[in-house]
Amino acid sequence: MKIAVLGGDGFVGWPTSLHLSARGHEVHILDNLSRRWIDTELGVQSLTPMDSIQERTRIWHQETGRRIRFHLIDLAGDYEILKRWLAEHRPDAVIHFAEQRAAPYSMKSDRHKNYTVNNNVNATHNLLNALVEVGLDAHLVHLGTMGVYGYSSVGAAIPEGYLPVGVETLSGETATQEILYPANPGSIYHMTKCLDQLLFQFYAKNDGLRITDLHQGIVWGTHTQETKLHAQLINRFDYDGDYGTVLNRFLIQAAIGYPLTVHGTGGQTRAFIHIQDSVRCIELALTNPPKRGDRVKIFNQMTETHRVRDLAELIARMTGAKVAYLPNPRKEAPENDLVVENEQFLKLGLNPTTLAEGLLSEVVDVAKKFAYRVDRSRIPCVSAWTKDLAPTLERDPEGKRLKSVG
Amino acid sequence: MKIAVLGGDGFVGWPTSLHLSARGHEVHILDNLSRRWIDTELGVQSLTPMDSIQERTRIWHQETGRRIRFHLIDLAGDYEILKRWLAEHRPDAVIHFAEQRAAPYSMKSDRHKNYTVNNNVNATHNLLNALVEVGLDAHLVHLGTMGVYGYSSVGAAIPEGYLPVGVETLSGETATQEILYPANPGSIYHMTKCLDQLLFQFYAKNDGLRITDLHQGIVWGTHTQETKLHAQLINRFDYDGDYGTVLNRFLIQAAIGYPLTVHGTGGQTRAFIHIQDSVRCIELALTNPPKRGDRVKIFNQMTETHRVRDLAELIARMTGAKVAYLPNPRKEAPENDLVVENEQFLKLGLNPTTLAEGLLSEVVDVAKKFAYRVDRSRIPCVSAWTKDLAPTLERDPEGKRLKSVG
Repeated sequence: MKIAVLGGDGFVGWPTSLHLSARGHEVHILDNLSRRWIDTELGVQSLTPMDSIQERTRIWHQETGRRIRFHLIDLAGDYEILKRWLAEHRPDAVIHFAEQRAAPYSMKSDRHKNYTVNNNVNATHNLLNALVEVGLDAHLVHLGTMGVYGYSSVGAAIPEGYLPVGVETLSGETATQEILYPANPGSIYHMTKCLDQLLFQFYAKNDGLRITDLHQGIVWGTHTQETKLHAQLINRFDYDGDYGTVLNRFLIQAAIGYPLTVHGTGGQTRAFIHIQDSVRCIELALTNPPKRGDRVKIFNQMTETHRVRDLAELIARMTGAKVAYLPNPRKEAPENDLVVENEQFLKLGLNPTTLAEGLLSEVVDVAKKFAYRVDRSRIPCVSAWTKDLAPTLERDPEGKRLKSVG
Repeated sequence: MKIAVLGGDGFVGWPTSLHLSARGHEVHILDNLSRRWIDTELGVQSLTPMDSIQERTRIWHQETGRRIRFHLIDLAGDYEILKRWLAEHRPDAVIHFAEQRAAPYSMKSDRHKNYTVNNNVNATHNLLNALVEVGLDAHLVHLGTMGVYGYSSVGAAIPEGYLPVGVETLSGETATQEILYPANPGSIYHMTKCLDQLLFQFYAKNDGLRITDLHQGIVWGTHTQETKLHAQLINRFDYDGDYGTVLNRFLIQAAIGYPLTVHGTGGQTRAFIHIQDSVRCIELALTNPPKRGDRVKIFNQMTETHRVRDLAELIARMTGAKVAYLPNPRKEAPENDLVVENEQFLKLGLNPTTLAEGLLSEVVDVAKKFAYRVDRSRIPCVSAWTKDLAPTLERDPEGKRLKSVG
């Protein structure tokens, strides 16, 4: 298959590109490298030393004989260039990672809110628009988030995208219908993924586009089979308060002797998936496309759920780290249950890598190896969800006053 | 009250500005005049001769002694200017009409799709973002559309924004919850109004903004009490295939001896409201705001529903016009029922102006008076919803080949 990976230079995009290339697909990465620019803006860097995309693809070819082509294209800004690229290359599938993906970054300031909305909505819409315009029946696989559901279930376990509901009809009877699960986003970032869902629904209905939307949990881990092949193929690994995600952050904090940063009561339950499973799920979704005329196919891409404070305590026991309970910069429920269905991927053969598989210590080892690259002052979360919450974030877990709070 | 009317130069924005000014409010129109630019792009003009916004406001002052201020601001493009304006003027209420509002225009080409998404999403998001950033607790009243619901009811009568649904809980019981009515947009334009809904939901929840969303039916008529005060206060009146709306188009077609253009079977049932009621509803919504912390308040702003072919036959009987059944450029159900709740406005004192009130002939009179300004070649609908449908639109109702079909 010829596959375009939009955002293929990112944390999940890069290992996905390698995974698909290793399986013999012709992989093209389209990326505007915005994530590297954001590193520069924030003055942080990946814990792992990460080479340029050009150098990474050179090494991949050197090690495996396989080619991954890189195309510098701004999906949100360069509609005409994207359209021309699609018309010329006519990929069989398009994997769409090309969105600003951090909730805290999206809430940082009014500029960051506007950037996230503008970038994410226009990226997705430009892509859909161009697929229709060039008459390309490529299978579109999009990386969404479990966060579109919100974290309090409407009814029972969260189904895979569609909720059966009972409604009263004109004749007074109750009929059951399936509706897109009601959106309940918790940040501007999550909201853009909810907007994406409506774009997909419309283009599937009006134009018959074949679309799969993956509602992904929080990705943890850093290595996949392919990124381990050579030091210069290493994946990026974020630890800062904006882009670092909860489980990976705990592991890094444990590795460098920093308190594990739990926000609020830590009663938030979240869904998780290891990065190796993430790339495997994308491959499974790719090879099981919906038919033309079908509604959007939605998978819950996660393997287990955990309460944040339970994770912190698990890692504290494993490593001897301390746990710091801090004010919550997010406006969210202090406690929630979460039960999620994921039968579709299990039926397609996914064999989940869970926290019990011993890979937690692999992450701690990576973090220890690169601990000399950690800037401790970038660990605290400084993006507040509302102006009221900002003053609560002025001190780091060790009690030091932070320079900037937004 | 100090009121900002965004898009106050448009078809409903202008009479709303006059209506509120006449009632003693301090009215500021913010508009980028994009609708006038689109007239220029399409090479069509309002049936009624319409003066510049500067001239219109001058006449209003001359006739009534009241001032309406005009500010040339591009809501979608000039975030910083908008923010500064709001910080400086601190209006008590903001009425948001500032979106591209024609479904056929939004489906005209890939450029028009992108323009509509970009303009409408960024306009709405910039506004919400700026209200939070300047800490302004203004009541935001947004003009939405009945089209967010789609035109086939999920269950019984379409409620005012929120649908009670029964869902099965983890314990196996059925619980009833109210959810935002599932979106089912029929065009890119309608889709942007569905995106708006999610933006409103998020900002009401996260930031406590007070928001009212008016799901408006198809507006008919042209005069209001205030636009009738002086010839130069006349409202715009669109008859072309992109911006003209169904009932007004029938009345103009009847006035100039053109066949009434029914698309498909004419079995589509739609909701309608007279423009005088539209401005009255906006006033009622303005003076009945939600409280801080409330969910978005949603009204169905319509007074009656009609089947399109019934309307055509009514007007044919009234005027002697012929009815032409033409291919449908839209991808939509050929027939639908529509039952809509609108109790909220009735309870607040709305006294509906229905088709039976004799105002149909007023519209025909306006059309006859300005018939010399009609370009008959601009009457057919030429924007196809999909490329497959485009070839069916090549001839006008009189059998003549059209120059362009998109």
